[in-house]
Amino acid sequence: MRKSDRLIWVAQELLTRPSQTVSVSDLAARLGVAKSSVSEDVAQIRGVLESAGRGTVLSTPGAAGGVRYTPRLPEAERISFAEAMVQALADPSRMLAGGFVYMSDLLGDPLVLDRIGLLFAEAFAEEAVDVVVTVETKGIPLAAATARYLHVPLVVVRREHRVTDGPVVSVHYVSGSSRRIQTMSISKRAMPERARALVVDDFMKAGATAKAVVQLLSEFAATVVGTAVFTATADPAVKLVPSYTALFSLEHLQEGVAPAVSPAGSWVGRR
Amino acid sequence: MRKSDRLIWVAQELLTRPSQTVSVSDLAARLGVAKSSVSEDVAQIRGVLESAGRGTVLSTPGAAGGVRYTPRLPEAERISFAEAMVQALADPSRMLAGGFVYMSDLLGDPLVLDRIGLLFAEAFAEEAVDVVVTVETKGIPLAAATARYLHVPLVVVRREHRVTDGPVVSVHYVSGSSRRIQTMSISKRAMPERARALVVDDFMKAGATAKAVVQLLSEFAATVVGTAVFTATADPAVKLVPSYTALFSLEHLQEGVAPAVSPAGSWVGRR
Repeated sequence: MRKSDRLIWVAQELLTRPSQTVSVSDLAARLGVAKSSVSEDVAQIRGVLESAGRGTVLSTPGAAGGVRYTPRLPEAERISFAEAMVQALADPSRMLAGGFVYMSDLLGDPLVLDRIGLLFAEAFAEEAVDVVVTVETKGIPLAAATARYLHVPLVVVRREHRVTDGPVVSVHYVSGSSRRIQTMSISKRAMPERARALVVDDFMKAGATAKAVVQLLSEFAATVVGTAVFTATADPAVKLVPSYTALFSLEHLQEGVAPAVSPAGSWVGRR
Repeated sequence: MRKSDRLIWVAQELLTRPSQTVSVSDLAARLGVAKSSVSEDVAQIRGVLESAGRGTVLSTPGAAGGVRYTPRLPEAERISFAEAMVQALADPSRMLAGGFVYMSDLLGDPLVLDRIGLLFAEAFAEEAVDVVVTVETKGIPLAAATARYLHVPLVVVRREHRVTDGPVVSVHYVSGSSRRIQTMSISKRAMPERARALVVDDFMKAGATAKAVVQLLSEFAATVVGTAVFTATADPAVKLVPSYTALFSLEHLQEGVAPAVSPAGSWVGRR
């Protein structure tokens, strides 16, 4: 294989496996070259990815060591995504009765899901996340995209559990919007004990759902490393969870009126 | 930029955008080289990807023309995935009362989701799919992975619709397992008219749910190009939908007993 073909080959092995550890010995054996040659290729690929702002390739030490592609959204794509979302979310026809926002189109758009998943994964890349947790239904595609980029399992909290969940752990809580007592459950078998959990959802208003998820996760002795949401309302400013990360903040939610949309400063424009 | 760096750069632009058309003029402008140089790079990348069994790069003609990475799961990964799933599904502890199967761990595993999404996308790559449709809840991560690889929107059918769905279209149907009348709904705004729809789900027994989805989609004048499921029961052999694609077939489902698991011949071992 030509040297330049080998670079492409190593690049495809890394880029199609975000956050997965790939064995350099294994790559070298499959290519029939020395490990040092693969390491040189990886260094060159790392350089190009870093210049392009598309993340980096980290070496993981130890016996099970290897290399791992840690993805990042390039600055230009970050900015154009923020602009597109601000424009889309400010559409007054999204604003429904009761201050609710129609977002199903965005939450089904493969590019939007991929971008959000990558931004969430970036924001929590240093947090040694073991599991991404979401509540059915609308947050699931976002949470799946995040879990893919972090390469950790996805656990879905159910509002109504079924026989296929097996034994479950449930909590009751008071819903923020309906003020009614509701239930949420996790399959005992799906949720590990003492995990570092990232909670992902599409929307946060008061934070009652997120608070209930934290309570449910405490039954599994989990550490909640953060709560990441696509959009949050500016009002109430103080939520029922101590901290959260929102990509976009929405203000003045009223049926048929354009809301004020602000991208969170923490993720736009940072390098 | 060195020629070999440029190859890596073009490769990352393509590989991180499965099924998306990337403009050759745009790539050439960003690199400051002639379009013909980019076309040569793309040809070399195509050659490496094809030899690795990881898909191809197609040229899309016309004014909005460009190049598009069409991904594929390499044969070795296809076989090891099939083997791992056969082993996992044959675990007798998955078999719950009433012939139900616990699969939430697999349906939350990022590698399993990615593989299934890619296999479904491959199987329907020639069908000009406009939208991937699933029914909440367990099929959503699979459907999201499929939509990502096909680069089309995901539409989620709700069992109980909410204010955030906006206006909905609903149908009533008799559930295969409970024999009760149930409802399913799609947000009118989320589902386009006259679309070519691929229906994705985690499990099929009689096919009552899939049949109801087809009926619901007919309200939008959709063409259902196929129904793709992760697992289907061998019994009943004749389902309520005329055709479906299952990756794995399950037989002898009984609480605590190891079932017989067969990978569908159509996708294992094909080249």
